[in-house]
Amino acid sequence: MGKEIALKELESTRWINLSQQNYINQVSIDCVIFGYQDRQLKVLIPKLSYKGDFWVLPSGFVLQDEDIDQAAERILRERTSIKGIYLEQFQVFGKANRNSKEFIKLLKELNAELIENTKLNTDVHPDYEWFTKRFISIGYYALVDINKVVPQKSLIDESIEWYNIHEIPPMVMDNNEILENALKALRNDIDEKLNVFNLLPEKFTIADVQEIYETIFERTYIRTNFQKKILEFNVLERLEKKFTGAANKAPYLYRFKDNALLKYSQSNLPQI
Amino acid sequence: MGKEIALKELESTRWINLSQQNYINQVSIDCVIFGYQDRQLKVLIPKLSYKGDFWVLPSGFVLQDEDIDQAAERILRERTSIKGIYLEQFQVFGKANRNSKEFIKLLKELNAELIENTKLNTDVHPDYEWFTKRFISIGYYALVDINKVVPQKSLIDESIEWYNIHEIPPMVMDNNEILENALKALRNDIDEKLNVFNLLPEKFTIADVQEIYETIFERTYIRTNFQKKILEFNVLERLEKKFTGAANKAPYLYRFKDNALLKYSQSNLPQI
Repeated sequence: MGKEIALKELESTRWINLSQQNYINQVSIDCVIFGYQDRQLKVLIPKLSYKGDFWVLPSGFVLQDEDIDQAAERILRERTSIKGIYLEQFQVFGKANRNSKEFIKLLKELNAELIENTKLNTDVHPDYEWFTKRFISIGYYALVDINKVVPQKSLIDESIEWYNIHEIPPMVMDNNEILENALKALRNDIDEKLNVFNLLPEKFTIADVQEIYETIFERTYIRTNFQKKILEFNVLERLEKKFTGAANKAPYLYRFKDNALLKYSQSNLPQI
Repeated sequence: MGKEIALKELESTRWINLSQQNYINQVSIDCVIFGYQDRQLKVLIPKLSYKGDFWVLPSGFVLQDEDIDQAAERILRERTSIKGIYLEQFQVFGKANRNSKEFIKLLKELNAELIENTKLNTDVHPDYEWFTKRFISIGYYALVDINKVVPQKSLIDESIEWYNIHEIPPMVMDNNEILENALKALRNDIDEKLNVFNLLPEKFTIADVQEIYETIFERTYIRTNFQKKILEFNVLERLEKKFTGAANKAPYLYRFKDNALLKYSQSNLPQI
């Protein structure tokens, strides 16, 4: 996606139509986008282009004619440039005090700057009144192959970067709590949904899988036991050996079987 | 709670204030209330007082100054007459087509009858316009001691009854799907949250627990294995023997330890 098209899409989906009547009011979607790289679990987080340091989870609203899952997919696509991302709805955040007057003030100031800087058509600029209300937010987490993602800033972002799960910046409102609960949900889901493979490229070794498990659960596994358990799930297809230059010791590559998850969910398999 | 007070409370919480500006618009809460009796898992479901058979899960809306968990607690209290009910938020139902024109039509007709029949103050009767929109519904399931519950009809209910999980009537909109997913969530949560004890009276035998597990999972367990596993969770306190008339063979009574759940969640215990 070229820069021009991306900008156009952002304008159309994130700003031009951001008028109250197009959206479900007082409902938002917050996305925790997990990626994996160099034995680190990472989360994609934008920083707002505003004086002061404001980090905020990628988020958005639900169009009146849009399923909530579709809204989450749209928001994920806007921020990662890739489609068909694996996502899970994991929790609703609905405390009565979930509105941040500071954050809204910031948005209002940003908007004034934004209109001036980008020369957006003034008769379509959003009315921020509806932002001042309390929001109930539906939390989604997503698992992506970090190498495929091309992070996209929105018009109000200074940057968007991958942060190590242990070096997450302080975010607005309850966004850090949302992230922590997403991590708990991921840990809880892994054995049931076997979704960890979404963090890997298409082909991987069992050692790659073990590294991810060790990173997410912050513990080690015994190699032979881990390999046995993972293969017992019967969701992996063995491919050629990985090219390492040393053919004899090269490990096999695997890929996740088509429909393996469906079969898996119908059976009762042991836990790792 | 006397009938008069109950009615007054229903009026004040369910009707008099049911005007659009008091609530988060387009968000509802649906409750699946599970009880257990005679080896049957049951769900508390109202039937609407309207020509035609309309069943609908106990539901309600979220006040502007109310946490979503508080809203669910309020709805549960209204329908069961008991406080402090165990509940779990389990899923958001957010398809774009989640509005039922038939059901709204029914509500409008009911309202006309209601105002006439109950002589409610006409200047506070609700405007139903906001009901005609799409709703995003937050699903909660609750576990109750069925013997403590005194089911409460709302003003629009003909009846409210316990239905065996295998004999659930056809409900409006996606309410049957919400119930099915609540059951899946319950099954999924049991070992992690050890919440099944909320379906039992304060004192119970291990055989009582086994019966509930067998009913919920629709399978049998070997008695000695089951007893061993349950006791290994270390969340039960052994009390006196159950009075059966035959002291020697009488089983022990148990109760759920205070704070057992807290301790449990910090450890890694085996699954049943």
